[in-house]
Amino acid sequence: MPMKIVFATQNRSKVREASEILGPGFELVVPADLGITEDIPETGDTLEENSLQKAMYIYERTKEACFSDDSGLEVDALGGAPGVHTARYAGESRSADANMDKLLRELELAGPDAPRTARFHTFATLILPGPEVHVFEGIMPGRIALGRSGRGGFGYDPIFIPDEADGRTAAELSEEEKNAISHRGKALRELADFLKGCHGNTCQ
Amino acid sequence: MPMKIVFATQNRSKVREASEILGPGFELVVPADLGITEDIPETGDTLEENSLQKAMYIYERTKEACFSDDSGLEVDALGGAPGVHTARYAGESRSADANMDKLLRELELAGPDAPRTARFHTFATLILPGPEVHVFEGIMPGRIALGRSGRGGFGYDPIFIPDEADGRTAAELSEEEKNAISHRGKALRELADFLKGCHGNTCQ
Repeated sequence: MPMKIVFATQNRSKVREASEILGPGFELVVPADLGITEDIPETGDTLEENSLQKAMYIYERTKEACFSDDSGLEVDALGGAPGVHTARYAGESRSADANMDKLLRELELAGPDAPRTARFHTFATLILPGPEVHVFEGIMPGRIALGRSGRGGFGYDPIFIPDEADGRTAAELSEEEKNAISHRGKALRELADFLKGCHGNTCQ
Repeated sequence: MPMKIVFATQNRSKVREASEILGPGFELVVPADLGITEDIPETGDTLEENSLQKAMYIYERTKEACFSDDSGLEVDALGGAPGVHTARYAGESRSADANMDKLLRELELAGPDAPRTARFHTFATLILPGPEVHVFEGIMPGRIALGRSGRGGFGYDPIFIPDEADGRTAAELSEEEKNAISHRGKALRELADFLKGCHGNTCQ
């Protein structure tokens, strides 16, 4: 019987992606299934704090095993920006196109010699009744392309070339290829491995 | 009027130390004041997870602003040990003497050329109603002495020489001197600075 676990997100694309990464051993419950339909607050100063806050918000209301993730893009030449502001880098509209335009422009302003190295970074927080808290981290290193390529993925994928993708952008990878190397894939697989070591109330 | 905040610990020495570090702007409430007298679980795999778990345990039961800390000693030649096992390195008796003996012995086994560099590391977690979660970190770098010196402090202080202590061990420092440079002092002062920026429900 698959293990039931609440995913602390209101984002349906994230749920589908997580469900594929976690595999058939897990049945993901979403907050709406439990009557929680409002936005989940994320007012932390770091990706990790946001991940903690989202998991705690849902755990506080459900007392059920739950997890959340928070991810960001960290560009070296921009001192780690957009980081915690990744989703709303160009403003509250959260437009991927506007965000990518702003990032390419900022890198241009940084000059032709500025390194284009960057990484996607995920923190996933798991809360089990007790409570017990476990934090998992995943990183996908790469670099920022000069322009867009590819139609897959979402967010900054068309301008991010992962080190492990033979020169293609993340938007040129199949879902399976991306999940195998992505920050979120790494963090959530670690979380899944951890949960597979749990029996009743004891985890190893 | 001082800000009331719950310190998620059952350790009276920690409460006294934190109260000195935080200063007169804060009134520390301890779990026993709220009828919570059992040990607070700390079963995390890392200092940070333990710090999160302790704060969440108390927040879950009180719904009040609260914080916790978890600290450990990381010795380079021992791959970061004792780390999360700092308090019970030599066993569940938690004897400071037995812990220091074991650490000195392990370093001897590591050979005469093994570096003696080490650091004390604190993670402090603040949870505010909402919930909001903030994590603060403090580090005191130094090295492991060849033997014990001094009678102040507690734990491994007699065998730890902080880089900022002119060759004295942490146990040879006054409380004020130690708090000024300690891992816990740094983390809790950051936490206090953060709280001073809070007005009502808004923090900056």
